[in-house]
Amino acid sequence: MHFEQRTVTCGKLRPEHAGQQVVLNGWVNARRDYGGIIFLDIRDRDGVTQAVVDTSHRADLGEQIREVRSEYVIWVKGAVRMRENPNPNISTGLIEILADDIGVINPADVTPFEIVDDLGTNEELRLTYRYLDLRRPILQKNFFTRNKLSQITHRFFEEEGFVEIETPVLTKSTPEGARDFLVPSRINKGRFYALPQSPQLFKQLLMVSGFDKYMQIVKCFRDEDLRADRQPEFTQIDVEMSFITQEDILGLTERFIKKAWKEILDYDVTVPFLRMPFKEALERYGSDKPDLRYGLELTNVTEIARSSSFTVFSESVASGNVVMALNAKGCATFSRKQIDELGEHAKKYGAKGLPWLKVSGSEVTGSFVKLVNDAERDELLTAMNAVDGDLLLFFPGEWERACTVAGALRTEVAKRTGVLASVAGTYSFHWVTEFPLLEYSEEESRWIARHHPFTAPMIDDVALLSVDPTHARAIAHDLVINGYEAAGGSVRIHTNDVQTKMFDLLGFEREDADAKFGFLLNALRFGAPPHGGIAFGFDRLVMLLCGTDNIRDVIAFPKTTSGLSLMDGCPSDVDAQQLTNLGIALSKL
Amino acid sequence: MHFEQRTVTCGKLRPEHAGQQVVLNGWVNARRDYGGIIFLDIRDRDGVTQAVVDTSHRADLGEQIREVRSEYVIWVKGAVRMRENPNPNISTGLIEILADDIGVINPADVTPFEIVDDLGTNEELRLTYRYLDLRRPILQKNFFTRNKLSQITHRFFEEEGFVEIETPVLTKSTPEGARDFLVPSRINKGRFYALPQSPQLFKQLLMVSGFDKYMQIVKCFRDEDLRADRQPEFTQIDVEMSFITQEDILGLTERFIKKAWKEILDYDVTVPFLRMPFKEALERYGSDKPDLRYGLELTNVTEIARSSSFTVFSESVASGNVVMALNAKGCATFSRKQIDELGEHAKKYGAKGLPWLKVSGSEVTGSFVKLVNDAERDELLTAMNAVDGDLLLFFPGEWERACTVAGALRTEVAKRTGVLASVAGTYSFHWVTEFPLLEYSEEESRWIARHHPFTAPMIDDVALLSVDPTHARAIAHDLVINGYEAAGGSVRIHTNDVQTKMFDLLGFEREDADAKFGFLLNALRFGAPPHGGIAFGFDRLVMLLCGTDNIRDVIAFPKTTSGLSLMDGCPSDVDAQQLTNLGIALSKL
Repeated sequence: MHFEQRTVTCGKLRPEHAGQQVVLNGWVNARRDYGGIIFLDIRDRDGVTQAVVDTSHRADLGEQIREVRSEYVIWVKGAVRMRENPNPNISTGLIEILADDIGVINPADVTPFEIVDDLGTNEELRLTYRYLDLRRPILQKNFFTRNKLSQITHRFFEEEGFVEIETPVLTKSTPEGARDFLVPSRINKGRFYALPQSPQLFKQLLMVSGFDKYMQIVKCFRDEDLRADRQPEFTQIDVEMSFITQEDILGLTERFIKKAWKEILDYDVTVPFLRMPFKEALERYGSDKPDLRYGLELTNVTEIARSSSFTVFSESVASGNVVMALNAKGCATFSRKQIDELGEHAKKYGAKGLPWLKVSGSEVTGSFVKLVNDAERDELLTAMNAVDGDLLLFFPGEWERACTVAGALRTEVAKRTGVLASVAGTYSFHWVTEFPLLEYSEEESRWIARHHPFTAPMIDDVALLSVDPTHARAIAHDLVINGYEAAGGSVRIHTNDVQTKMFDLLGFEREDADAKFGFLLNALRFGAPPHGGIAFGFDRLVMLLCGTDNIRDVIAFPKTTSGLSLMDGCPSDVDAQQLTNLGIALSKL
Repeated sequence: MHFEQRTVTCGKLRPEHAGQQVVLNGWVNARRDYGGIIFLDIRDRDGVTQAVVDTSHRADLGEQIREVRSEYVIWVKGAVRMRENPNPNISTGLIEILADDIGVINPADVTPFEIVDDLGTNEELRLTYRYLDLRRPILQKNFFTRNKLSQITHRFFEEEGFVEIETPVLTKSTPEGARDFLVPSRINKGRFYALPQSPQLFKQLLMVSGFDKYMQIVKCFRDEDLRADRQPEFTQIDVEMSFITQEDILGLTERFIKKAWKEILDYDVTVPFLRMPFKEALERYGSDKPDLRYGLELTNVTEIARSSSFTVFSESVASGNVVMALNAKGCATFSRKQIDELGEHAKKYGAKGLPWLKVSGSEVTGSFVKLVNDAERDELLTAMNAVDGDLLLFFPGEWERACTVAGALRTEVAKRTGVLASVAGTYSFHWVTEFPLLEYSEEESRWIARHHPFTAPMIDDVALLSVDPTHARAIAHDLVINGYEAAGGSVRIHTNDVQTKMFDLLGFEREDADAKFGFLLNALRFGAPPHGGIAFGFDRLVMLLCGTDNIRDVIAFPKTTSGLSLMDGCPSDVDAQQLTNLGIALSKL
């Protein structure tokens, strides 16, 4: 289909172009008919330009665009001229094109929803017609931001001396492979590749190879039950460095984040970032990725609770547990129903109940106020800096669980009281460090690696591995931005003997470790440098930079939380012949 | 393990640094002991620096490095000084470090092969220990070249106004899906994702979305029986543009290639590239990706053969076929055995025999010389510009088949006569255009798309679709460099009616087309702009820039031609439980 090719895009024309002959190509954004005059707003990714068709003098043009309506693709040729009624809201608002010739490139049916922002259309319909959804200005903007971050990333790491190396997508399934996507091999029937959850081992091997500083923007895959902010495939900025200490990794990261925020948002990030040990983050904020844009700190009231006449408290402490507490500032106005809702929320995170006190004027009420004497009550109030109008929430239980539930309530309270809304548009950046190296899995009756089994223990804690592994800390670091884990990494084990000891600790039989990780254990015998790194959640960074909390707003063709692509209907049935060729069959249900 | 961190890398020190205290970290590249003096060459990705340990004065240092041998990771601290015996072959050859302190960071077992170039080690062993293989200087260099091309690519397309957008890896299996890798879905049991053979449909949808200029460096997957220069996963520079003609795509490509060759090889590429229609490429060079660095053009001798007394010729022509011919210049010296080998080679490409003539002095001999008269013989010689010393090869058969076999022999002759070796290090860039849109598949008894079913027909040939589809040409373009298809693309169909007609032609039932491609057909109804693009074989470009013909030399962790990763043993067996979770089982063999 012939069309006149554009000489300029739709966001470029300004008063200085008046008098020039131009051709525009684009979509009809709006059509307005006034007797004898038709206005067509023509849109492309660059902007919108108004074209004027003077049908009273050019009936032929009127005829050519008789059918033209929104989303038609057209070309317009004409002279640029100043508008009589300028539109100060758009960059081309001072000018317009007087159409001299015009043509339809491709007609458009009426779209299932209007191509505008802030539409109420449900997300399913938008995802089904994703190619139309992506025409909305806000999504266009998000993907230009994503592109910009990508370009900044490539350039930053190049300037820092990193080399980009691609690692395989068809890899080996690992023992933590329960969440691996598998790919049957046709040539090697009965055997499977796995899609990588991260290029962890490959990047470590690249350090053994001497590449020194590696980075990659890379797709990773995890077949887990999806949550709102997760996708089965996600993008990571993957980084590894040799001959470094943890300081080098943190410094590099801070420079990168500072540059990205500056170039994209013109926001000055202060470095270095605050560093908070894991234990402190849990104890003060109830999370290993706390949002530090607001306070609402927790209080540990275990010592007061130890001798409480409220047996829920005293028995918790007696059994070795703790009592954490949250002062929900100003929430004394919460109704009984609202407090019950908080209780339900706490239960979702594993709490058995939610003891509370409320300070209204000089009166203190609450679920257990009658079970404690005034002195204990006042001691709690003092410890928690409670004043008139506060609601106090208590979390007896095992330390990490109690902290986590309290942290979840901290977030909930921040949402319900408008605290979270009040910090929108601001940013908090900090490190969480000194993570426990291991955690005990009751389910598997063994130690498992909290980060991954290649994480190095802190030098001071190496001796603990043999005697008290639960207290060994890892040289690990998570970058937290506004309560999101934006990046995570560690210094790695680089010697064969420590790695072997780690596999022993994790309960891998030597044979099993060799079968699964023999190549890594071997590599560590042939001269491995000290190394470590970090991986950034690229989608998360883009979300933060775009100010959205919906990850699907920054992924061009996302899956639903059920792992479906509504646009093309994948995953889908396949031919029986395809399965036969792969040597597999569907299980009987 | 404590180590002194480097203050400088191993390729940086020069005479102006003499007297400075430095610390190096790296691998021992070589150890040379001379009574009282030990030389250690220390290597990192940047270079090699010589350290001197004066054991006659510092017995303690001698003790510390008693065990140190090749590939140990060490640190050395000391002062830079001028060498007594400079080494002009390396950039640091004028200086050395006098070790003041030294330590082992990580010891190394004896490596299974030496870390040097040009080693005779078989490739299997090298791939098994890929992390050591990658230490070899030539492979290090290849990956720095690959990185450089990657950076140039990102920058070039950014400057040209392209936006990088990531398309999904978990996609839908298509009707041409016989070569799709499938991924069973755990959440949606019995259904499968497919790994993309290319992001073709996604990039077209991004054009429908109005992104205008899209690019991506992206992994693609094809589960085919592997050839030497193929890998199951490969990397593509994927490009799509809106409101363009074919000229825009070719021009962009030429600018990109010119920039890449200039920046990486300092090689001046002449643009625009020669354009050769498919038909001419076949007829003159017997290939749709001919290597134009050398001549050895084919001759079409059909008209002479038409009335030949050699019935193989005349019957071929009588049945509508042709006779192509190749003058293997200077190959009259080939023995009967060598000519038989050429015949075997021709058979592999589908020839039934290989008639030949040989011009030695005034004598003409050959397989059919006695079956033709002197006039016909001389007519053939004249048509082929045959002179003393030439070997003439003939290829009767169906036109495309005959051309292809002749083309395969052209390459073989170029290899055997040293013509190919003589053009090493030079480059030829050209376009092949005007590909047939369709080809008839005898196997499936239907038309299939030669490129893919989304390729637009040439405007002059649209009418042919209904009456004579075999002669309809596509607006397609392949970039050929030194006989490799370095890139391929086309202008796409952008209207619903032409796309529907194309699916009809290809024999898709409407229902089937809707089920498989309904989303594309829909998208074309809502205002699709004219668009087209190209995809570059990134691995191929790197191969060409590195001067290697082994694709595994430019992929960090490649698979063998059997699809195996020898390093980690993938694909591998997986737990029965994993399969159960996915709802699949292995078929009984």
